[in-house]
Amino acid sequence: MKVGDRHYRSIWPVASASGKRAVGIVDQTRLPFEFVTVELDSSSQVAAAIRSMQVRGAPLIGVAAAYGLALAMSENDDDAALARAHAHLCATRPTAVNLRWALDRMRALLLHTPRGQRSERGWTEAGRIAEEDVACNRALGAHGAELIAGAHTKLQRTVQILTHCNAGWIATVDFGTALSAIYQAFDAGVDLHVWVDETRPRNQGLLTAWELAAHGVPHTLIVGNAGGHLMRRRKVDMVLVGADRVTRRGDVCNKIGTYLKAVAANDNSVPFYAAVPSTTIDWSVVDADTEIEIEARSEDEVRRVYGRDANARSASVEITQATTPVVNPAFDITPARLVTGIITERGTVAPAELARVFSETQGAAERAGV
Amino acid sequence: MKVGDRHYRSIWPVASASGKRAVGIVDQTRLPFEFVTVELDSSSQVAAAIRSMQVRGAPLIGVAAAYGLALAMSENDDDAALARAHAHLCATRPTAVNLRWALDRMRALLLHTPRGQRSERGWTEAGRIAEEDVACNRALGAHGAELIAGAHTKLQRTVQILTHCNAGWIATVDFGTALSAIYQAFDAGVDLHVWVDETRPRNQGLLTAWELAAHGVPHTLIVGNAGGHLMRRRKVDMVLVGADRVTRRGDVCNKIGTYLKAVAANDNSVPFYAAVPSTTIDWSVVDADTEIEIEARSEDEVRRVYGRDANARSASVEITQATTPVVNPAFDITPARLVTGIITERGTVAPAELARVFSETQGAAERAGV
Repeated sequence: MKVGDRHYRSIWPVASASGKRAVGIVDQTRLPFEFVTVELDSSSQVAAAIRSMQVRGAPLIGVAAAYGLALAMSENDDDAALARAHAHLCATRPTAVNLRWALDRMRALLLHTPRGQRSERGWTEAGRIAEEDVACNRALGAHGAELIAGAHTKLQRTVQILTHCNAGWIATVDFGTALSAIYQAFDAGVDLHVWVDETRPRNQGLLTAWELAAHGVPHTLIVGNAGGHLMRRRKVDMVLVGADRVTRRGDVCNKIGTYLKAVAANDNSVPFYAAVPSTTIDWSVVDADTEIEIEARSEDEVRRVYGRDANARSASVEITQATTPVVNPAFDITPARLVTGIITERGTVAPAELARVFSETQGAAERAGV
Repeated sequence: MKVGDRHYRSIWPVASASGKRAVGIVDQTRLPFEFVTVELDSSSQVAAAIRSMQVRGAPLIGVAAAYGLALAMSENDDDAALARAHAHLCATRPTAVNLRWALDRMRALLLHTPRGQRSERGWTEAGRIAEEDVACNRALGAHGAELIAGAHTKLQRTVQILTHCNAGWIATVDFGTALSAIYQAFDAGVDLHVWVDETRPRNQGLLTAWELAAHGVPHTLIVGNAGGHLMRRRKVDMVLVGADRVTRRGDVCNKIGTYLKAVAANDNSVPFYAAVPSTTIDWSVVDADTEIEIEARSEDEVRRVYGRDANARSASVEITQATTPVVNPAFDITPARLVTGIITERGTVAPAELARVFSETQGAAERAGV
């Protein structure tokens, strides 16, 4: 997508002057105030960037980890180094399945690649995963845009969409998931407006507001507490989010607070959609509530709020007393019964239809023992 | 309640050295980091303190407004001044009914009081309203404590209570509403733990954490997005909140985000209670959704977060870009169908029973044309 006049992806390969490889990223911890790009030239730098959420979003961290594994191979390409890098990158964040999916795909390929060719082959494969992500998100966004256009045809007024967290182009390689649908509907001339949940504690809603503003999409920021009220006042026509993991049953694991919006949407007969590339579907999970590890992130994310001070410099304030106990679960699970549809590259699919629509993918995953 | 070794109420009458009257308050915008008391010696100072939320909480702003009207009478006690002060104080905040209730009661009395005696009589009456609030909150807290004790008897383990916003002693004259129940259960030895919602945008959860810590009650702060997840994981046994207005049908108007917790509680078969003195019940409202004005507060409450900087000094950061549109509705309505019970000074009452239990109050309100 464009930032000013220039087209960016959220991650891109770089060859430095010395010929050493690196990946460029947008440092998402500096947004929305500063657009800063960073180069990562080692596997451990990639792991640190994922953990600190300089790169974030389920699809993007999958691609970033793939590049991380390729970078590891240029340091040491024996099997033990491959296993170590895989484990190290896999441990950065536990909830999104794309991370493990991309790393497993890379490892399977590299194990069958002779040493000496692994770095080159890994680099190519990471690029391929990135391109597939872009194609997937373009395709799923087109399906999501149809839903929004359909709502407009029915309502004959501005379509009001509520989104939570950031499922935009910076959460993927390009286009985004939920926002891919919104961008494509907007570009097709559909009259729409987006309610942007702030999404405490990390306030990824500010990333979404930044993205939407850059693309000219009408939007309004609200605190996470306000969405239910807007639904009761009939000011929301659909809830549209991304996801970190979707199960074969259609349970949606996404940023903490998603479930609260889904249950309120259900209470108000507002449709709830999650938009995901099929790489976000984890066919191995039967019971999301017991099998998906919900990442517990640092208390500091709750205690400390980042922004700008009166001189427009980066600053933070501590909002809690140091003695106040805090917990910070990062994700929750929205059960399939509250999900109207999963928007994928193959169309919008009811939770109960997911396994059928992706039967061969699912079968392949099972055969591969994933 | 105690702050350190000293007993405080949230508001108290003061006679200055010059004999001029004033009311003392705890400046709630300085909590949780600083406990600062302020004296207000005019009606307009009281109005400003209510508007800026130096005093807040439905029961407390009713009492503060009553003192404000008494102070107005010491400046000018003719009927026009009484009408002006009533209107001025009533306009400070539109949603909580206690404000209007207290002002109407004061006006009715003062209109039947000869000039020259109005200041003295108003001062006495404001004190009476304050005492009634304390007695009411002590009584309703005892009923709420029974519910918590009952849950403990049934569960035979720590009772997990989730609360939203601050319904503590600083939101009333003393004891609190929801927290009055928690304090009394805790003091009676019931094993309990409180999940404290941060409550963006104004973060009144930090006031609740401060209160609970001062009283030694086990608690943990969470972001507002996390409560639904905790309910799905069976970590919440009841939701217990205060309210700014309850209707005769039992609809609960309370701090924005309450509805999201109530609908999630319902989805997880977790009981949801609102604890209120009967002065918070508005018998005149039939349809909460159309008749209760939801206060729209300043965008700045969303844009700017207050806390402490690295030197432990009061500071704030701006978290949004200046161009990002923001809306900030301050309250929402939880429909009676999601409410297990209203905890009042007469006991815990099912929404459908409210009008019967308070039939004579309701009748009196109707006769008075309230």
